[in-house]
Amino acid sequence: MTREKITLFDTTLRDGQQTPGIDFSVEDKIAIATMLDEFGIDYVEGGYPGANPTDTTFFSRKRTRQAGFVAFGMTKRAGVSASNDPGLTQLLQAKADAVCLVAKSWDYHVKVALGCTNEENLESIRDSVKAVVENGKLAMVDCEHFFDGYKANPTYAIACAKTAYDAGARWVVLCDTNGGTQPPEIRLIVQALIAAGIPGSSLGIHAHNDTGQAVANSLAAVEAGVRQIQGTLNGIGERCGNADLVTIIPTLCLKETYASRFETSIDREKLVGLTRLSRAFDELLNRSPNHQSPYVGGSAFATKAGIHASALLKDPKTYEHVEPESVGNFRKVMVSDQGGKANFLNELKRRGIAVAKDDPKLDTLIYVVKEREASGYAYEGADASFELLALKTLGSVPDFFAVESFRVMVERRFDSHGKLKTVSEAVVKVLVDGEMMMSVAEGDGPVNALDIALRKDLGKYQSEILDLELADYKVRILNGGTEAITRVLIESTDASGARWWTVGVSENIIDASFQALMDSVVYKLMKNRKLAGKIAAE
Amino acid sequence: MTREKITLFDTTLRDGQQTPGIDFSVEDKIAIATMLDEFGIDYVEGGYPGANPTDTTFFSRKRTRQAGFVAFGMTKRAGVSASNDPGLTQLLQAKADAVCLVAKSWDYHVKVALGCTNEENLESIRDSVKAVVENGKLAMVDCEHFFDGYKANPTYAIACAKTAYDAGARWVVLCDTNGGTQPPEIRLIVQALIAAGIPGSSLGIHAHNDTGQAVANSLAAVEAGVRQIQGTLNGIGERCGNADLVTIIPTLCLKETYASRFETSIDREKLVGLTRLSRAFDELLNRSPNHQSPYVGGSAFATKAGIHASALLKDPKTYEHVEPESVGNFRKVMVSDQGGKANFLNELKRRGIAVAKDDPKLDTLIYVVKEREASGYAYEGADASFELLALKTLGSVPDFFAVESFRVMVERRFDSHGKLKTVSEAVVKVLVDGEMMMSVAEGDGPVNALDIALRKDLGKYQSEILDLELADYKVRILNGGTEAITRVLIESTDASGARWWTVGVSENIIDASFQALMDSVVYKLMKNRKLAGKIAAE
Repeated sequence: MTREKITLFDTTLRDGQQTPGIDFSVEDKIAIATMLDEFGIDYVEGGYPGANPTDTTFFSRKRTRQAGFVAFGMTKRAGVSASNDPGLTQLLQAKADAVCLVAKSWDYHVKVALGCTNEENLESIRDSVKAVVENGKLAMVDCEHFFDGYKANPTYAIACAKTAYDAGARWVVLCDTNGGTQPPEIRLIVQALIAAGIPGSSLGIHAHNDTGQAVANSLAAVEAGVRQIQGTLNGIGERCGNADLVTIIPTLCLKETYASRFETSIDREKLVGLTRLSRAFDELLNRSPNHQSPYVGGSAFATKAGIHASALLKDPKTYEHVEPESVGNFRKVMVSDQGGKANFLNELKRRGIAVAKDDPKLDTLIYVVKEREASGYAYEGADASFELLALKTLGSVPDFFAVESFRVMVERRFDSHGKLKTVSEAVVKVLVDGEMMMSVAEGDGPVNALDIALRKDLGKYQSEILDLELADYKVRILNGGTEAITRVLIESTDASGARWWTVGVSENIIDASFQALMDSVVYKLMKNRKLAGKIAAE
Repeated sequence: MTREKITLFDTTLRDGQQTPGIDFSVEDKIAIATMLDEFGIDYVEGGYPGANPTDTTFFSRKRTRQAGFVAFGMTKRAGVSASNDPGLTQLLQAKADAVCLVAKSWDYHVKVALGCTNEENLESIRDSVKAVVENGKLAMVDCEHFFDGYKANPTYAIACAKTAYDAGARWVVLCDTNGGTQPPEIRLIVQALIAAGIPGSSLGIHAHNDTGQAVANSLAAVEAGVRQIQGTLNGIGERCGNADLVTIIPTLCLKETYASRFETSIDREKLVGLTRLSRAFDELLNRSPNHQSPYVGGSAFATKAGIHASALLKDPKTYEHVEPESVGNFRKVMVSDQGGKANFLNELKRRGIAVAKDDPKLDTLIYVVKEREASGYAYEGADASFELLALKTLGSVPDFFAVESFRVMVERRFDSHGKLKTVSEAVVKVLVDGEMMMSVAEGDGPVNALDIALRKDLGKYQSEILDLELADYKVRILNGGTEAITRVLIESTDASGARWWTVGVSENIIDASFQALMDSVVYKLMKNRKLAGKIAAE
């Protein structure tokens, strides 16, 4: 049985741009369009040429090789001809393969937002689509508020979609603009539309996540006959976001319910690049990836050593809904106070650390880890510190250097101009090969100052740590109140692109930060010597 | 037409505990159980008594008033009688109203994980349920891997569920343990089970979010006849999390598709507390709320100044899938915030602060608060700081004292006995009535030292603040990396039993802590003069 093609349409650069706090530069857009194009998405919607300088510049050239490059814009205004509508004209001049026109399909909005008659709106749709086609571009129409519009006036909503289709639109996209429609409604309304004469092969779905149903609505529409899905990378978008293509794609490829009937431009081979794509996008947005994201999250295949862990190790397949590797992710059985011997061996093995099941040092390690976790350490979140601790316990970490002492000072006072200022200064004494290095530095805060001072002069190791960067810093106060314990987690990275987490715990936040910083530096030196870092590099 | 009841079962404290990075203390569990109980959830699953000291202690007393208090555990092992099974015995001794037994329903796992025969497993289910019922507790059975089990061996999966039901289980819960099942499969399998003789009114659904379908699967199961939904607060849980009750509840209450047929224990009035519940839970986890969460997210009803904003202001209803107020959230239009002013007036009124709607000082206050929140302050979590800021802006906070300067020092070195020790010392200069007080103190950490020094001598005010206590201290790093901003929240209390939160924000954690400490002391002095503290005393 031949499988039907589901067309993938990405609107990260257009609707995704509506995400609070996200503003793409032209360079960002070029980078993201390239990622999507190389991954194999069918259509990349780049933005709204004419609406702002960024998008206009972005559309001054075609930005994709394989993918259809789509410009978004409005249908012509009522009362002017398509050729005399400045907005539409700019749209047609954009260096795009296709144009996606947004059209009102809820009569209420035609009146309130457009202030024209229902017939004038249909005419705008008709003439605008024709203009796009005559211009030699592929035409699509986003029917805004389609589902709410259908509930208010089914005849008119269908008329809008039908007009677009009859005028030559290759795709008529049904938008759940307010994001409140539920899957059963989606199924019924799509079926009604197909019954009205628009083939599912020309219909698309554009869902929003306002009720956590964007993925379900997209797939419900496909079940009902729709053959194009619009979404964004990692589900970014206005309000609660758009349908997440990073979730929908693997479901279409790997879940029998869909894979047996449908195919997409993303084959099994390309699918392995999914996790990288998702993480690279977050990297570009400069935000830490959501650990709980379906398929690609750092925790998506992580098991806290509870009732499942030991059985999981016996036979992963029956405890995982898909193979982590199929989406470029990997299995993680976390070390935690619930953990057993099997987990430790498995964790050590993954890190390329060989130790015999009956080696007494293994029991020591388990004891030490449990003891430390009881006192506040969280190794499940600090891979590198766990690896160092394991290597130390098994006796294979050289003494690179020793910190004799440090002093951190924060002072807040009025400066010579009578203005309040706060100064943070740190002094660190390090012993390298019997030579004492003393470094002093100022920083934004005490931890920053300490970090700078610690890494200012490590003698013969200095050149090795120049590319070490502090990527993230997290603090957690464990048991509130005065005798609180502070846990610090630090994420580090280096030129190789590797990332690793280290942990420090103390009643003193400076002390805790110092431990995590030290672990990070030592781990970097071990990594440089290929004595550690298998995971970090993954 | 009478609506059918959908029973809400929360497993935040049990399955939610499996979330990477989350480890509840007994105090956490008591606080969360109280939140859920007061909100109106039907069942609160508290954990696994006998599995760890925390849960055992937690179940030494009943922790809910209205909600059914549920203990989770395994069915008896094969080969021993229910009365001789130590695990089951501990479970029955727990101070719970109901017991939820997890049972294998996939024959493969019966063999591999339990290592007993299919018949022995059915017997364990039967006898364990009977033991719970005879013990006078309500019995529920979580059928682990039910959907995957059904696909592998439908007859056996149904037999497991049927055995539990026939033995007297009030609820038979269908678990999609691996989280990979899709809505169409859920519908078919639930229908088959009901056809096999278990009424939907005794069936529950326990979904995981591994394909982003946990909400959709829960509701698909309800469509198919299931009448209990299990989920967690904010969807926490193993891997990608559990079904998010914070999303499902408003959908059941507000979406016609469901609201016309079903009702839950959460009426429209309780529903208004949803956003507060969700945020309070994140606060307790000391993590920043997800801005894009359906219904309760900070961006859930936010519109970026795009094509919608202006029309939205004309008529919000047609641009919002539900009214923000219905879930205790509010509209944010980033161009001009209409909902804002009313909110502020309410907040001030609640605090007994009178100000006229057209008082220009009110606009100043709104401006200042928005500006500060944009720079990292979080006044919803810091009542006292908000109240002080309001009173200052409206010009009614006396200058009790002024801190001229402070200095904090943390030193780590070897003491005279060659042992490493870390010392934290703070010096504070305060001006009271033209008199300069200089105080020095040591503490567990820099913040503790600063706190002690600041409150050591406030001259004539000293006697007033003797009963002031620091109850909790929270730190959050706002935008990770090097140019991170630190937000500190401090909870204070005094002899009157009142509690208040203050906030400080700075790139320097000591500075941020100092701001929060200062606010707390000034608030205490205002409170003593009945010039503030209406909320804190509530």
